[in-house]
Amino acid sequence: MTIIITPFERSPDGGKGLARDTRARWALEEVGATLRGSPVFRSGAMKEPAHLALHPFGQIPTYEEGDLALFETGSIVSSISRAPCGPLPDDANARARAITWMFAALNHGGGRRSLNLGNAQAPGGRQPWSKERLPLVEDRVRNRLDQLSSRLGNADGSMVRSAGAT
Amino acid sequence: MTIIITPFERSPDGGKGLARDTRARWALEEVGATLRGSPVFRSGAMKEPAHLALHPFGQIPTYEEGDLALFETGSIVSSISRAPCGPLPDDANARARAITWMFAALNHGGGRRSLNLGNAQAPGGRQPWSKERLPLVEDRVRNRLDQLSSRLGNADGSMVRSAGAT
Repeated sequence: MTIIITPFERSPDGGKGLARDTRARWALEEVGATLRGSPVFRSGAMKEPAHLALHPFGQIPTYEEGDLALFETGSIVSSISRAPCGPLPDDANARARAITWMFAALNHGGGRRSLNLGNAQAPGGRQPWSKERLPLVEDRVRNRLDQLSSRLGNADGSMVRSAGAT
Repeated sequence: MTIIITPFERSPDGGKGLARDTRARWALEEVGATLRGSPVFRSGAMKEPAHLALHPFGQIPTYEEGDLALFETGSIVSSISRAPCGPLPDDANARARAITWMFAALNHGGGRRSLNLGNAQAPGGRQPWSKERLPLVEDRVRNRLDQLSSRLGNADGSMVRSAGAT
């Protein structure tokens, strides 16, 4: 079965698959690409009907495998991870905890706060008040990373912070 | 087994369970409360160590059942929905599609955009530029609801819009 992942045509890398489709590609690597066929990447015209039929919000990535079409990276990664040799634990409680962190990563890690930060840091700002808002957005990201560092036992937060908010 | 859901002590309803814990309560109703015991609600001091041990970001709801402690409503609802009589379909593809909409509901429905709108609409605004930013935030919510209406076949968007963005 051929798996099709739709990357973002206008991403900074020109649609080579280093935007949010990275998550889906990474998950496919984890289960072994040969297990589910070789991913085929194609550029997507995000707001055209053909793509909106796959993704109602006109975003990427989408995932197609035979009759199955999925959107939302969390769902795609979740679906791929359930493969027999996938990274999700067999024990029900351990699996529920792993899925919890999948939702948390999307909501608190690479989600809206980070995207807001990227937009606020854009040269000249996207809006007249972007510069004024930037410290607030940065504080929100740092707050999440500090909380994450506390949970992971990294008291000063330096490693996690350096990867995201500085 | 007793299930414990932590509601938000300072929600507008005084912690009666009508904040984000509603999702977890609703899911428990779907599978039948007797199946997994009666939910017991308790108020949470969100930023204290005892609660942070359950939820690293100091939010609600949390879910406790024996040795299992979960956070993130998406994960909690996902876990509850997998019960044998739960609402998730048995067919693997249908189940993957249902899980896709669980992620979509969190990311595009009751998620960050709606929360931003609520904050931007707060009396006097939370920030000096809140009033100036409000139309942008409203447009983002309307855009998502229009896209959702298109997918659901409700061409003018009136029903979906009236529930959220007006």
